[in-house]
Amino acid sequence: MPSPAFDSRFAESFEQLLLWRRDVRHFKAEPVPQEQLDWLLAQAALAPSVGLSQPWRFVLVQDPALRAGVLEDFEKSRAEAEAGIPVEKRGAYGRAKLEGLREAPVHLAAFTDTATHQGHGLGVFSMPECLHYSTVMAVHTLWLAAQLRGLGLGWVSILHPADVARRLSVPAGWDLTAYLCLGYPSFESQRPELESTGWEQRRPPEAWLLRR
Amino acid sequence: MPSPAFDSRFAESFEQLLLWRRDVRHFKAEPVPQEQLDWLLAQAALAPSVGLSQPWRFVLVQDPALRAGVLEDFEKSRAEAEAGIPVEKRGAYGRAKLEGLREAPVHLAAFTDTATHQGHGLGVFSMPECLHYSTVMAVHTLWLAAQLRGLGLGWVSILHPADVARRLSVPAGWDLTAYLCLGYPSFESQRPELESTGWEQRRPPEAWLLRR
Repeated sequence: MPSPAFDSRFAESFEQLLLWRRDVRHFKAEPVPQEQLDWLLAQAALAPSVGLSQPWRFVLVQDPALRAGVLEDFEKSRAEAEAGIPVEKRGAYGRAKLEGLREAPVHLAAFTDTATHQGHGLGVFSMPECLHYSTVMAVHTLWLAAQLRGLGLGWVSILHPADVARRLSVPAGWDLTAYLCLGYPSFESQRPELESTGWEQRRPPEAWLLRR
Repeated sequence: MPSPAFDSRFAESFEQLLLWRRDVRHFKAEPVPQEQLDWLLAQAALAPSVGLSQPWRFVLVQDPALRAGVLEDFEKSRAEAEAGIPVEKRGAYGRAKLEGLREAPVHLAAFTDTATHQGHGLGVFSMPECLHYSTVMAVHTLWLAAQLRGLGLGWVSILHPADVARRLSVPAGWDLTAYLCLGYPSFESQRPELESTGWEQRRPPEAWLLRR
């Protein structure tokens, strides 16, 4: 049976979805309805996974003390990470808003269950990192689905993954892959915030294509 | 400026796109027009990346000797990986078609440039793996774009990444993240091949959601 044909109108909207998807750090206080969250997770479940292992594990972080603990870890990590930033960029680094942990109504931590038996080890013997990559694709699916529903997502990577795992008391073998803030964005733009603030600019495909 | 509103018709088609996206191992011989490939790479360029680093590097592998070398590495890796498969699954493992390297008209290797200065180190100090995760999101974007255009993509992870990097003579610091086969699929299905052959089955979102 053939897949449905996707017409040019769909292709244009799909491209618009990609163009408008941002890493959001400014959220409105407005809560995210449970129905929306359920739909996003249902879409994430359709992501590819190595050996059909579906190793992603989502943790909805609702306890204010746990959220405050994650924010504390972010602040510590952010200070430490300054060592990895070129000297001439440190002023801009200090001024940048790099997360929306305080404002985002939803905190969602995405872990990878490295001990799962689902998938029976297919495809991970020489590239075990593919389990984590599967979780990344579930997160990316959720991200696009969020944009489709007018929601914004921000990925916070300035964290100590093992410390976050410990704080959230997840099972052994669960690695933190992504810590996500979700909510309605305060504003929208086709331009990444890191570009409009002058941190970095995007390059075209020619910059990273080789032939062999 | 607000993002365009995505209507329910778009949402339905988006869900169909996710439902029909498969890991393809059976390809027609029909070539992929250059214009299609250019469009896929242009979509991939819109993927999120940590610190706007765009660390993905795509290598179009056209030389028949290099393709044959990758196939050889796959066969060696596949034999070695049997050690990681449960005994009761080894018969099925031996029979499974796990890649379409021979038939696929396009081989595309996706590397991550771990030495890039783009992004100025933002977001990778405590989670350097986010560079690779950015490449994974570019691959996933390309995968969805391919499905939209009626093309199928297969991700081959049963490979020795360092050996593939050496064969393709890529710069130092480029890690192989994904080796992709691309072409028109011989057939389409809403059901993953690993499910229809009885290897594994998908689980619903309730299986991997926790609250804290």
